[in-house]
Amino acid sequence: MNNFDEIKNFKRGNIGLAQLNFVAGDIEYNAKKIIKHINLAQEMALDLVIFPELSLVGSPLKDTVIRHPFLIDENIKWLQEIAKLTTKTTAIIGFISTNNISSFAIVSNGEIQKVIENGMSQFEINGINYSVSTSKDDVENEEAQVIIKCFNTPCRKNKEQILSNLLSFIAKTHNKPLVYVNQVGATDNYSFDGVSRVYDENGELSAQAKSFEEDFLIVNPLENYGKISPLSKGLEQPFEDRFSLDYENDLERVYKTIIQGIKDYFSKNGLERAVLGLSGGLDSTVCAVLLADALGKENVYGVSMPSKITSNESRTDAEELARNLGIYYSEMPIKSMVDTTNEVFTELFSEVEKGWDCRYQKSFTQDNIQARSRAIYLWGIANEFAKCVSIATSDKSELYMGYATINGDMSGGFAPIADVTKTKLFALARWMNKNREVKNAIPESIILKRPGAELAIDERTGKPLCAEDALMPYEFLDEIIWRVEHKQETYQDMLNSEFVYEKTHSISNEQKQEWLEKFYRRMSFALFKWSIMPISVIVDTCSISDYNQPVATSRINYKGHSKEQIRDILENV
Amino acid sequence: MNNFDEIKNFKRGNIGLAQLNFVAGDIEYNAKKIIKHINLAQEMALDLVIFPELSLVGSPLKDTVIRHPFLIDENIKWLQEIAKLTTKTTAIIGFISTNNISSFAIVSNGEIQKVIENGMSQFEINGINYSVSTSKDDVENEEAQVIIKCFNTPCRKNKEQILSNLLSFIAKTHNKPLVYVNQVGATDNYSFDGVSRVYDENGELSAQAKSFEEDFLIVNPLENYGKISPLSKGLEQPFEDRFSLDYENDLERVYKTIIQGIKDYFSKNGLERAVLGLSGGLDSTVCAVLLADALGKENVYGVSMPSKITSNESRTDAEELARNLGIYYSEMPIKSMVDTTNEVFTELFSEVEKGWDCRYQKSFTQDNIQARSRAIYLWGIANEFAKCVSIATSDKSELYMGYATINGDMSGGFAPIADVTKTKLFALARWMNKNREVKNAIPESIILKRPGAELAIDERTGKPLCAEDALMPYEFLDEIIWRVEHKQETYQDMLNSEFVYEKTHSISNEQKQEWLEKFYRRMSFALFKWSIMPISVIVDTCSISDYNQPVATSRINYKGHSKEQIRDILENV
Repeated sequence: MNNFDEIKNFKRGNIGLAQLNFVAGDIEYNAKKIIKHINLAQEMALDLVIFPELSLVGSPLKDTVIRHPFLIDENIKWLQEIAKLTTKTTAIIGFISTNNISSFAIVSNGEIQKVIENGMSQFEINGINYSVSTSKDDVENEEAQVIIKCFNTPCRKNKEQILSNLLSFIAKTHNKPLVYVNQVGATDNYSFDGVSRVYDENGELSAQAKSFEEDFLIVNPLENYGKISPLSKGLEQPFEDRFSLDYENDLERVYKTIIQGIKDYFSKNGLERAVLGLSGGLDSTVCAVLLADALGKENVYGVSMPSKITSNESRTDAEELARNLGIYYSEMPIKSMVDTTNEVFTELFSEVEKGWDCRYQKSFTQDNIQARSRAIYLWGIANEFAKCVSIATSDKSELYMGYATINGDMSGGFAPIADVTKTKLFALARWMNKNREVKNAIPESIILKRPGAELAIDERTGKPLCAEDALMPYEFLDEIIWRVEHKQETYQDMLNSEFVYEKTHSISNEQKQEWLEKFYRRMSFALFKWSIMPISVIVDTCSISDYNQPVATSRINYKGHSKEQIRDILENV
Repeated sequence: MNNFDEIKNFKRGNIGLAQLNFVAGDIEYNAKKIIKHINLAQEMALDLVIFPELSLVGSPLKDTVIRHPFLIDENIKWLQEIAKLTTKTTAIIGFISTNNISSFAIVSNGEIQKVIENGMSQFEINGINYSVSTSKDDVENEEAQVIIKCFNTPCRKNKEQILSNLLSFIAKTHNKPLVYVNQVGATDNYSFDGVSRVYDENGELSAQAKSFEEDFLIVNPLENYGKISPLSKGLEQPFEDRFSLDYENDLERVYKTIIQGIKDYFSKNGLERAVLGLSGGLDSTVCAVLLADALGKENVYGVSMPSKITSNESRTDAEELARNLGIYYSEMPIKSMVDTTNEVFTELFSEVEKGWDCRYQKSFTQDNIQARSRAIYLWGIANEFAKCVSIATSDKSELYMGYATINGDMSGGFAPIADVTKTKLFALARWMNKNREVKNAIPESIILKRPGAELAIDERTGKPLCAEDALMPYEFLDEIIWRVEHKQETYQDMLNSEFVYEKTHSISNEQKQEWLEKFYRRMSFALFKWSIMPISVIVDTCSISDYNQPVATSRINYKGHSKEQIRDILENV
C-alpha cells in the first residue's frame, strides 16, 4: 500500500491519483467513492487529490444528460456537499457544469474554489503552481511548475502508444513534470485501462498506476517520487502498421479488456449469471472461458444443444470444456423442437406459397431454425433464473460477413467477442490455455477443428459445412477487416497489394477479386444485423459498434467508378 | 406540371428547386437524378437549379465516410463530371468536400465555379446577386438580392413551426426573398418532409413545394412567382406546449411520416414484402394497415398464431382485418411448438435448478415462449421467401416500459410504430378508418378492446391480463413520456403538477408516486432492449432511437436527493 512514511519526507507537493471505477449515472455511488478517497488523502495530509474526468456523474454518458438534464443539478448539489468536507487537502473533481460541459472543480477549505469548463487553468497550493486541463491540446501556462491532464481514454489497440508519446512530448517540451489521471472500468462497450502516470521534466516516466485495476497512487512530481507498476502486456507493444497473424504480444490486453467489460457490464446492471450454448466450436468455447474468469465458474451455465447435424466430437468437446472450467453443464437435444417447427413450416410455407410466388430454391430457413430454437432455451433459462442473462457468441469476422443468425447466436444480453476476429480468437484460445491458472482448459480438438456453424451439411462432402467454404479463408478475411479498419483501404487498394495469405498460398487474381467482392456484398447486407447487435466490448482500434452507418447505405458501390465510366453513365441519362 | 410559358415572361431569375429523394451512399443513382434535373432546367433555360444538402452522396450518412473515406473522392469525381454537362443553367449541388464537410458546389459553363464549405458565399447570375449558405444562422451578405438556404430537416412534431418562423424571420429582417430547399424521403429512422419554399421580402410565403413527395418547383423570387402546394395537415398545426389526448390535427403528418419511412426503408434496401403476426390487438393491426398502404396489399402477409390464451374474438378480429385490407392471411396455431418447448423446459429448468438455487417464484418465461415461437414462424417466412422481412410491432409506450419480448414482438426488420404512443395509436386507427380510401378497414372491436399481450391470464379475473393492469393507465403513461421528452421534466416536477388524467380520475398521491416510480424503474430496465431495437421511423419531437443512453446508466436515481440527504450520506462514508 501507499507508503505514509516515505511521503512524510516531502513537506509539499504530495498528490494522490484516484484511478477509480465509477458507474455512469449513479452519482451517490460515485460521490461516496470520491469522499472516501478525499478522507484518505486528508489523513495522509496530501496537498492534492485528483479524480478523473466526469468522476461524479460517470462516463461516458453519451446523450443521457440531454434526455435527463436534472442530472446536472443533481451532480452540482453533490459537488457542493463534497466541497464542504474538504479541510486539509485540495481536490480536483470531474463533473458536468451547468452548460453541460465536462468540467473540473477545484475544491478546498470547504468550498468550490474554481470551475474549469474549457481550456487550461492555473492554481497554487503550498507555493507550488499547477496548471490543469481536460484537453489533449498542448497549451500550458508557463508559470505552472506541474502540468495536470485529465481526460478519459478507453483501451484500444495502439491507444497507449499514441497517448504516452503525446503526454511525454508535452512534459519534455515544457520541461516540467506532467501528471495524467485516467479512469478504470467499463461502461457498455468502452473499457478503460487506467494507467494514470507521471512524466518528469525530461518526458521520462516517473510513476505509473496499475492497468485494468483501481489504484490510489501517491506521487510527488517535483521530488520525482512515485511507484511504477508494470504495464499489462499488450499495452506496451510497438505500433503496428502492417497486418500480422502473430497476435501474441497483444493477447493479455485483449483478455483483460474483455474480462473487465464483462465484469462491469454485469455488476453495473445488477446481473450475476450467464447462460450460453456450448457447441464445441471456438466461439462459444472462448466465450465460456472468458465468462468463467470474469463472473466465477459457479455463475456460468453451458448448455449443449445438439441437432442431427451436430457431430459426436462437438458434444464430447463441449462436455470436456465445461468439466475443465468447472462451470455448470447440461445437454438438451433440440430435435423435438426442430421437428415440431419443421412440421408447422411445411404447412405454413405451402400456405404462404399460394399468395407469394417467390419461394427461394435454396434458403437458410432450416439452418436458422436450429440457432433460433437454441436461443429460445437460453432466453428461457435467463427469464427463469435470477440475475441471469443469455450470451451472444458471434465473433467479429462472422459479424462482418453477416454470418450470424438473428434471434439465434447473435442474440443475447452481451456479446463478449464481437470485436475479436476469428484468427485472433484462435490465438486467444491458445494464450488462455497457456496463461490461465488451470492450464489447457480448452480441449486441443476444439482449436484444431475447422470452424463451422454445424447448421447445414456440405453436399459435396456429406459433412457439416465449414465456414471458410461458405465465406473465404479466415486469414484472408481478417486481413481485409484489418485493412478497412486500420488503413481505410479501398477495394482497389487491396486488389493491388499483397496479402499475408498470398505469401503462402497461390491465388489467382479472379479468386482475390471474388473474395473482395463477397466481402463488400456481405458486409452491406450485414448492416441491419449490426444495428441490432447486443452491447459488446470494443477491443480493437475500430469496431463494428464504433461507427454508426445507416442500413440504407447498403447500395454503396465499393468498387468505385473510373472517370470514363462516370462520363458514359451521365451522358446517357 | 411546370408552366413553361409562364416562366418565359421573366427574362431572368428563374430558379428550379429540386426537392428530390436521394439514396444515402448510392452516388450513381443520385448523380443520374441530379443530371436529369439539370437537363430539365437547361431545357427550360432556368438561371439556376438548386439541389439539397448532400444530394450527391445522400444524407444522413452518420459515420459512413469515416469508415469508408473513398466516398469523398468518389463523390468529387462525379461532381466534376456533372459540372462538365452544365451549359446554360447554374446548379448548386450539395456534396462532401475533401475535408469531409457538408458543402455546396456552384457549377456552370462546364466547370465547378466555387465550393462553399462553411458559412455563406455570394455569386451572380444574369445581374442578380445571390447569397447561399448551409447554415441555420442568420448571417447574410447585404449585397445579395436573394437569400438561399439549404439544410436538410427531417420531419418531427413541431419542426415545421420552428423552421418556418426562422426562415420567414430571416427574409423579413433582411427585406429580401429567401429560398429554402429541403430533401424528401427517408433514411433509416429519419423521414424528410420536403416542403421547399420561398418567402418574399416581407417574410410571407410566396411558393411552396409538396410535402412528403418529390417536386421540381419553378420559382422566380424577384417576380414573386411560384405555386403554393398545400402543407400536409399536421405540419401546420400550432406549437403545443401542453400534453393533450386530442391528436386529431397531427395524424396526417404521423401517417405520412411512417408511410414514407416504410416505403423508403424497403425500396432502398431491396426489400418488397413484409410478414407480421396479427394478434387482433391494436399494435399489429395498425402496423398491418400502414404496411398495406406503404407496400401494397399484395406484399403483406398477416399470420394469426393463436395460443391457448388467445380469445376467439382476437382470432376473428385478425381475420376480418386481413379481409378488409385485402392482404394475405393464414392462421397457424402455436400450440404444438409451445407444448414441445414446455416439455423441454420442464426438464431443462429442473436440471439448471440443481446448480442454481435462484429460480423465480413467478417468471415471464411462459409468456415469452409464445412471443418467441411466433417470431420463429415469422422469420421462417422471411428467410424462405424473396425480399421479405418480418415486422416488429412494439409501440412507444410499451417500449418505454420494456413491455416487449426480446426475440419476440420486439424482433423484426423494421419497427413501424416504435415512435407512436398507445393513446396516439388509438387515434391513428380511428383516423385511418375515416381517411383511407377503404373506410373502416379496422374492425371497431379492435379499437374498443383494452390492450393486452394475451400472453398471460389475470389470476383475479381468469381472463387475459390487460396491459394497463400490469403497467398503468395509458393516458397517464403517455403523459409521463410526453413530459420527459418535450419538457425534460423530473420526477418531482411531475409529482407536483396535474396530469390530464387527474382531471377526470381521482387518484391518490401514493398512486401517482407509485406510477411515476414504476415508470422510471421499468424504463431503466428497458435500456438494454432499446439498444437492440430494429430501425424505426422517428415521428415525435423526441424518440427512443434519438438519444444514445448507455445501458450501464440503469442505476440513475430519478427521484434525486435533497441537500440534507446528500449531507447525511457523505458524512457517514
